[in-house]
Amino acid sequence: MDHVVVVGGGAAGMSASSRVRRLNPNAEITVFEETKMVSHAPCGVPYFIEGLFNDENLFMTYTPEFFISKRKIDVKINRKVYDIDLNSRIVKFADENNKKSIVEYDYLVLTLGSVPKKVPFEGKRIFYAHHPAHAVELRKELWELDKIAIIGGGILGVELAEALSNKGKNVILIHRGKYVLNKMLDEDMGKVIQDRIEKDVNLKTEESLMELRDEGKTVITDKSKYEVDGTIVAIGVTPNISLVKDKVKLGKSGAIWTDEHMRTNLPEVYAAGDSAETANLITNDRTWMPFAPVANKMGYVAGSNIAGKKMVFPGTIGTMITKYKEFYIAKTGVAEFEAKKYGIKVYSSMIKSKTRARYYPDAKDIYVKLIAEENTNKIIGAQIVGGEEVLGRIDMLAAMIMKGFTVEEGFFVEMGYLPAIATVWDPVIVAIRQLMKAD
Amino acid sequence: MDHVVVVGGGAAGMSASSRVRRLNPNAEITVFEETKMVSHAPCGVPYFIEGLFNDENLFMTYTPEFFISKRKIDVKINRKVYDIDLNSRIVKFADENNKKSIVEYDYLVLTLGSVPKKVPFEGKRIFYAHHPAHAVELRKELWELDKIAIIGGGILGVELAEALSNKGKNVILIHRGKYVLNKMLDEDMGKVIQDRIEKDVNLKTEESLMELRDEGKTVITDKSKYEVDGTIVAIGVTPNISLVKDKVKLGKSGAIWTDEHMRTNLPEVYAAGDSAETANLITNDRTWMPFAPVANKMGYVAGSNIAGKKMVFPGTIGTMITKYKEFYIAKTGVAEFEAKKYGIKVYSSMIKSKTRARYYPDAKDIYVKLIAEENTNKIIGAQIVGGEEVLGRIDMLAAMIMKGFTVEEGFFVEMGYLPAIATVWDPVIVAIRQLMKAD
Repeated sequence: MDHVVVVGGGAAGMSASSRVRRLNPNAEITVFEETKMVSHAPCGVPYFIEGLFNDENLFMTYTPEFFISKRKIDVKINRKVYDIDLNSRIVKFADENNKKSIVEYDYLVLTLGSVPKKVPFEGKRIFYAHHPAHAVELRKELWELDKIAIIGGGILGVELAEALSNKGKNVILIHRGKYVLNKMLDEDMGKVIQDRIEKDVNLKTEESLMELRDEGKTVITDKSKYEVDGTIVAIGVTPNISLVKDKVKLGKSGAIWTDEHMRTNLPEVYAAGDSAETANLITNDRTWMPFAPVANKMGYVAGSNIAGKKMVFPGTIGTMITKYKEFYIAKTGVAEFEAKKYGIKVYSSMIKSKTRARYYPDAKDIYVKLIAEENTNKIIGAQIVGGEEVLGRIDMLAAMIMKGFTVEEGFFVEMGYLPAIATVWDPVIVAIRQLMKAD
Repeated sequence: MDHVVVVGGGAAGMSASSRVRRLNPNAEITVFEETKMVSHAPCGVPYFIEGLFNDENLFMTYTPEFFISKRKIDVKINRKVYDIDLNSRIVKFADENNKKSIVEYDYLVLTLGSVPKKVPFEGKRIFYAHHPAHAVELRKELWELDKIAIIGGGILGVELAEALSNKGKNVILIHRGKYVLNKMLDEDMGKVIQDRIEKDVNLKTEESLMELRDEGKTVITDKSKYEVDGTIVAIGVTPNISLVKDKVKLGKSGAIWTDEHMRTNLPEVYAAGDSAETANLITNDRTWMPFAPVANKMGYVAGSNIAGKKMVFPGTIGTMITKYKEFYIAKTGVAEFEAKKYGIKVYSSMIKSKTRARYYPDAKDIYVKLIAEENTNKIIGAQIVGGEEVLGRIDMLAAMIMKGFTVEEGFFVEMGYLPAIATVWDPVIVAIRQLMKAD
């Protein structure tokens, strides 16, 4: 009987182990998880901080007990894997009391997740918001503060700004880039959401952190100095590969290299989730896309292949969605700035529309930007900021992009129309028509 | 200079004429419209009846004056075309005083719309809800009634039931079919919405109207008799082809036959919108799909071709969406019952999920049913009933179906995830996974 050992009990790890179990009732499956939580959801941390829910167990889709009793997966929480011997196929781990043990594997799945990028300053009022297992403690500390600086205006920074602003905190958001979400959106779309954020938050762009002093209560940037009660650092995440960085092949993104079966350079070792690199379907470059749905599918594919059912993970196009107050903010495919970086010649359209028929109450604003490739007329990127039905529309555009829809094919997608939730020319179609004129 | 004459100023007619104008600044374009409204939206009638808006001018996307002054389209409202001579290329019309005139055309566009199916009973309390131009009068009469029977549990019947129930009326909905929306949804999905409707409305299924007596205040069915204050008949619509039914080729659906360029059997005559027939992309049969977005695109294609820019209308897959109270109800592609009718062997999945992460407040229920073809494993149908993000998801599935996504390709569509508006395994993916198990 094969022994499958999974290191990391997050989305990818639990998907991989569940998939193996489903296809092979006899496999021995062990999952090592360093914290007390499995199948946990870091995406929920800002909403916990906001106080939208209070039970930290809700961070878990399923509990360790569920996996143990229902899926016969030997989940070991609070066990830190401190070394792996890939030649002898041995995983070395320690329990909470640092009691050390080893286990042998036939297949190894590395689902090591990601870790927040750190600043070189320490202090009791310097925080990182990452793992749900530490959310209770983090929230307790943040709720006692009034004036809070957030360093970094990426997705997490914006979500924390929303959460803390909703909680009544006085928020300063300090962002190095030219506009918020500048690694996700083009400037024209980024400005839309930036204008909204500035209504609640003291937003500083093109301003870089130089130093945190006084336990995190003094923020010194290249332009100014701020006295606050505490600082959250949200400057991004990196793949958590310290355990294996000299042992398996890493990709150019810095994450673990994988082939289309989610296999590393070693045939019996797979990787998935935030610690794994994959292909970008548009740029054909290698890419790193640390989002839960990608992690789940990578895990699913790794598990399938380990269990003997061949499956290919096609790669990613970079779908992402976040929100700020009444606006959802989504992106799929490449932004114009990314296309430029890769030398892809594009044309684009950006429109503003409403989410409902002109006579139907409570219509919300929606902005759609589409990007098409000059040579092929294929849609290769989309950005949407709007009050409702943003998710499904970005998903539709993701489907189109993955399958190479041309602009005209996009025009003819038979979208639904209901006055209560759409306009008769859907906002996406309006943007497509603009592209057709540009054609 | 070519003279393009358009008969019918609805969605298709105004799209066609606007497209011609855009491509050909010199064309002479005349639109005849029997009512006072152009680019009008029958889809809005139930919401006007509910009282969600009060200005009947909002039914029009643009006014006749807009088309006349901004687009130089000679829109003639309140002009009834009473005959067309296709040999001499002459349209004969009458004004409000029945003063008759003729006009010659080089190209003719037939956008005649649809008309409600009638019952063979008349009376002051028998109503049809169809054209926005009559909505003010209709609403005034309905608002004075308390107990109202609706005959027909299709999309319009359900929308009227919602509107009148929200308006505080006592509604009896009498439907001949086994369950509501039985021409749209399979029974399993139809029952979901039926259970909801029954909470507000006295719903009678498998019950047929036999007679309306007493001006519409007595409803006699094959099972019972109801005393009401009035009756709305909503038993469907038919293509409005009386003007041309002996003059152009009709399709098997009863609507005007068109080729892929929206041309009728006569080279200089085009048809579009509710009076035109097109191809069903899944069944390969001819079909009739009287919905505004299809009408708009048909008109756009007809106008392009008339103006000399070749364009093909690919056909339809039958996307439709409606709502009842907190539930959106959508369908695209074929239902199981339709697949059966066409001898297409399918397998299906149906799941119930939530619209938000388990920890995010105010999650709503969502039901997804997917239908895949046995031989090809392609997704060919989808039905969704849910509280939010139904539209975009059905649009995504429409895109997948139109492009022939297999179940596995659907699985790998990189959908977005945000706890506030999705689950980490999107409900659509959950349904796809069920299909993969059935595979």
